[in-house]
Amino acid sequence: MQAAIDGKGTLDERVTALAHHMADRAADILRCYFRAPVMIDRKDDASPVTRADREAEAAMRALIEANYPDHGIVGEELGNVRESSPYQWVLDPVDGTRGFIGGYPLFTTLIALLHNNVPILGIINQPIMQERWVGIAGIPSTRNFKYSSTRNCQKIDDAVIATTSTDYFTSAQAGKFAAMRKQAANAILGGDAYAYAMLSSGYIDVVVDAGLKPYDFCALKPVVEGAGGVITDWAGKPLTLSSDGCVVAAATADLHQEALSLLK
Amino acid sequence: MQAAIDGKGTLDERVTALAHHMADRAADILRCYFRAPVMIDRKDDASPVTRADREAEAAMRALIEANYPDHGIVGEELGNVRESSPYQWVLDPVDGTRGFIGGYPLFTTLIALLHNNVPILGIINQPIMQERWVGIAGIPSTRNFKYSSTRNCQKIDDAVIATTSTDYFTSAQAGKFAAMRKQAANAILGGDAYAYAMLSSGYIDVVVDAGLKPYDFCALKPVVEGAGGVITDWAGKPLTLSSDGCVVAAATADLHQEALSLLK
Repeated sequence: MQAAIDGKGTLDERVTALAHHMADRAADILRCYFRAPVMIDRKDDASPVTRADREAEAAMRALIEANYPDHGIVGEELGNVRESSPYQWVLDPVDGTRGFIGGYPLFTTLIALLHNNVPILGIINQPIMQERWVGIAGIPSTRNFKYSSTRNCQKIDDAVIATTSTDYFTSAQAGKFAAMRKQAANAILGGDAYAYAMLSSGYIDVVVDAGLKPYDFCALKPVVEGAGGVITDWAGKPLTLSSDGCVVAAATADLHQEALSLLK
Repeated sequence: MQAAIDGKGTLDERVTALAHHMADRAADILRCYFRAPVMIDRKDDASPVTRADREAEAAMRALIEANYPDHGIVGEELGNVRESSPYQWVLDPVDGTRGFIGGYPLFTTLIALLHNNVPILGIINQPIMQERWVGIAGIPSTRNFKYSSTRNCQKIDDAVIATTSTDYFTSAQAGKFAAMRKQAANAILGGDAYAYAMLSSGYIDVVVDAGLKPYDFCALKPVVEGAGGVITDWAGKPLTLSSDGCVVAAATADLHQEALSLLK
């Protein structure tokens, strides 16, 4: 087992370099398929987004296999390998598939590295806007290699809140979100991981989602936390590979507490 | 009155040049305010999006006043002048305000010129992606000066459909959209005018909205029609300054007919 972190918990720089390389390769592939003409009578598996998803994930997996052959991989498209390894890469080649299909430049590639089920590295990469957020446990997050931080918003009354889609909520969850929305300064629908990236850069203050999968949320944790934000499940518990997919992120600890109480 | 169209209905090229210049000026202003840091305790009227909205509209109005001082203007922010003129400019400096606030690069500036209440020129401009769609009655639409056209999608079953937000629907309208969504190949929420731009470039096949204002939909008509699409109100009537704000656009005439029958 080649260790990715040392005894002090510091991430090996070669791991970060590999993650950047993976994001670059995925971006090259996604740009080829984004806004590609679609023949309407094609079957779904041959659609540009499906091909983009699979090829980008395969390219990222090949880089992991070549560099850290004993690390585990959890991928949205191509399944899991070496699930008992202490290191797990969790990959979502195209987060925000619908937006990708419609030609919107908001989809992202998500790359996370977990150690003992805790995300220690996260990348959110938007290939069209060429924006990349990087979070590493214990150090400040960056957007395109400059420090990126949340806004100092303390109250839901002042907050810009967002959710990917109210469709993913149960009716009880939808009621809680609706109450929060009524109180908030502004609410944005849509965005998937891009909303968490915007939170990490200080434009959105709270993001609430339900029904997320580990490949949807693992990469978000190091980015949001390294930007000064707080991200947990709706019960306030830290996100791990086995979290239930109900996620709430906030710009500050006070705002996160208020959001948690509204979602209780 | 300086005529903007000749006896054959052909638009004076100086009008198109002016509209491009207006879009350029608005874009310069919006780029200054997009993702500007926001002090949370600021009053709403001083928010970046409000200032961007007002300044961009003022700049566009000044260009109209300097070049066509007897044309009317309908603006989202700064009111209407010379409403009895046969020529009316209809302006929305920031369509998609919420996305602008959240830092999403999907908001657009909408510029329309109407003759006798019918839109004859439309521009949809996205300043961050630097994408500009131009529609002129009777000639093909363009995206960044290249021809732009809808996809040859004939059936809702095959269609990618979109709406800005289901929040703007009455419950009866929401039921009709939900039925269409169930039948469609894919559905995208969000996008405002950007969804119509994507329809005009062949990535989305049907867009359905309700509750739009004239400055939200006038610019869309020449762009969608010049791209080969069909855009009307939900009753199938042509869009004019006095339409009711229920809008349906489709990539082809057959698809539009099917959408109309589902919305009836």
